[in-house]
Amino acid sequence: MIKVVSKHYVKENKIQEFVENAARMVEATRKEEGCISYGLFQDDNDPKILTFIEEWESKEALEKHKTTEHFTNIVPILKKLDEKPGELNIYNQVL
Amino acid sequence: MIKVVSKHYVKENKIQEFVENAARMVEATRKEEGCISYGLFQDDNDPKILTFIEEWESKEALEKHKTTEHFTNIVPILKKLDEKPGELNIYNQVL
Repeated sequence: MIKVVSKHYVKENKIQEFVENAARMVEATRKEEGCISYGLFQDDNDPKILTFIEEWESKEALEKHKTTEHFTNIVPILKKLDEKPGELNIYNQVL
Repeated sequence: MIKVVSKHYVKENKIQEFVENAARMVEATRKEEGCISYGLFQDDNDPKILTFIEEWESKEALEKHKTTEHFTNIVPILKKLDEKPGELNIYNQVL
């Protein structure tokens, strides 16, 4: 199982727009083969921090995800709404 | 449901020691009431990045966790093994 944490720092006035675009991404991604879970989370202290937390059956499933139409269309839109570059961590479970 | 991502940047020569202490934390925490999931994950590209990804039924359960013996004993040990301050995000699910 692969866990992905993709953290975005969104412009203060673009949060709603970010969530609307993310909703299209979430809906399409959850239908993908190998997607165990895929959600969007907002930091309790800073609403500008919006993070995708994802679980994938394999690296191959995650790589395939990056070639999908929804990924290639929506991710550039989300990045334009960011205040500064985000952080992407791809994790393996240790414990 | 509350999601917690607690990211550590561990000293290169302290990774094993970190994991051993984290194992004690994971074992005790998973027994706590309100703990949905609690795991330790290692970044695929940088083994010094070790992150707890947690799910709690409520903020109250998470707050109680911070008062437990294992939390108060082990977290200071883990912090001493860090190369630089980590990042703690407490999240609410949006999508």
